[in-house]
Amino acid sequence: MSDLDQLFVIKVGGNVIDNPALLQSFLQDLAAVKGKTILIHGGGKIATRIGNQLGIESKYVNGRRITDEATIDLVTMVYGGLVNKQLVAQLQALGCNAIGLTGADANIIPAVKRPVKEIDYGFAGDIDTSKLHTAPLKTMLDTGLTPVLAPLTHNGQGQLLNTNADTIAASVAIALSGFYRVRLIYCFEKKGVLRDAANDDSVIHLINRDIYQQLLEQKVLTDGILPKLENAFAAIESGVKEVLIGHAADVLPNTTGAVAGTLIC
Amino acid sequence: MSDLDQLFVIKVGGNVIDNPALLQSFLQDLAAVKGKTILIHGGGKIATRIGNQLGIESKYVNGRRITDEATIDLVTMVYGGLVNKQLVAQLQALGCNAIGLTGADANIIPAVKRPVKEIDYGFAGDIDTSKLHTAPLKTMLDTGLTPVLAPLTHNGQGQLLNTNADTIAASVAIALSGFYRVRLIYCFEKKGVLRDAANDDSVIHLINRDIYQQLLEQKVLTDGILPKLENAFAAIESGVKEVLIGHAADVLPNTTGAVAGTLIC
Repeated sequence: MSDLDQLFVIKVGGNVIDNPALLQSFLQDLAAVKGKTILIHGGGKIATRIGNQLGIESKYVNGRRITDEATIDLVTMVYGGLVNKQLVAQLQALGCNAIGLTGADANIIPAVKRPVKEIDYGFAGDIDTSKLHTAPLKTMLDTGLTPVLAPLTHNGQGQLLNTNADTIAASVAIALSGFYRVRLIYCFEKKGVLRDAANDDSVIHLINRDIYQQLLEQKVLTDGILPKLENAFAAIESGVKEVLIGHAADVLPNTTGAVAGTLIC
Repeated sequence: MSDLDQLFVIKVGGNVIDNPALLQSFLQDLAAVKGKTILIHGGGKIATRIGNQLGIESKYVNGRRITDEATIDLVTMVYGGLVNKQLVAQLQALGCNAIGLTGADANIIPAVKRPVKEIDYGFAGDIDTSKLHTAPLKTMLDTGLTPVLAPLTHNGQGQLLNTNADTIAASVAIALSGFYRVRLIYCFEKKGVLRDAANDDSVIHLINRDIYQQLLEQKVLTDGILPKLENAFAAIESGVKEVLIGHAADVLPNTTGAVAGTLIC
């Protein structure tokens, strides 16, 4: 594995997109990263705000957006257009040769419309990681480009689909782990996985399977972090070298080599 | 020149985007083209319609849109997001490996904000063809991708700019003419350059400099077609092999080899 180039697959959430000062410093850190990078972004509140102006109601069930026909057009505009292209333009200004894409572009991320069971999620796309087309991403990375992916996929029959950005990040990281030494980085609003949810400085800096089992037995992990950790271990079991979870302000690799956030390996 | 691969640089206007049946048949023809292709699309009326819903007034001076801050966000959403990604998804469904881009992506089309003289066009971008970055487009074309360009550029300092799609098409065609045998195709609502503006079947099938001079002397050309012809000859003088002007329904190369529209060479 050590012969492989390093690749950072970085997911940045809507809370960063919504915070111009934090976003700017995050993008500066991203542009300064030595090594290949892919950015996957969420949407932020702007889709809801523009949707309200257009009379498109935001509907959620269990924290997941229901994507009706008006909503898929809305998120295609806002995530695939406004947010994605503004990120690209800002990264270009910082000397990072970004290229903004959805999963439909170059057929990178084929998906299927989520089957309707108890809940009809509408135009929501589910990914099969084995079906990702990595060649276009590899060509871009190997020619010095930084792909910036919006949380959109397509069904191959002309329909765009709304897809969770965390899931896209994990799938891209796994699919590229045969070609690069991949660190998957989830940026969120906490400094990492906390031993004490009330204390922002109680970051657990390293978690492996054994430590994870101990933490589960001690019942110190909050419900919010459990799915992130399960996803992280699933990514590692599928070839991703390590997963880092932490705050957008300090989780990108820096020249000092200091590790902020929680490293999962 | 005959050793070079053929490249079709195709501009499709808003009137086709606005007509679902015509658009579908056009995209089918595009997907069936043998050879490398780049599509440049205009916006259509949907930006104005969504702008009206958002309370963004469309302002025009001499037929050119004035791009204020709200309008650049609007066209980034609608042209760079909705229209561009729907075209990509539809082309993917037709077996054409499309990749949707703006001029900011991979820094393909740097531009400068149009200087304010009598009129302030706002966030309108002017292109210097010699500054286009052709390498990413060449890599895409040579790996079987079909770039789909929205009429947006950027100033390299984080600002997206609204740029005329005809101009982008000509600049891309010229910039790539050193690497490919380029046919630039302008699709519009007429069957070609007409000898008699009232007769849709009076298409002049071939125009060269000599014929153009004769047509000018005969005063048979309408004001609307003159700038298109001037642009066409400018492209040819800068290395583009030929320019074809005609209707979206029949101007793409087909297997019969018949030429519809007006060929300028």
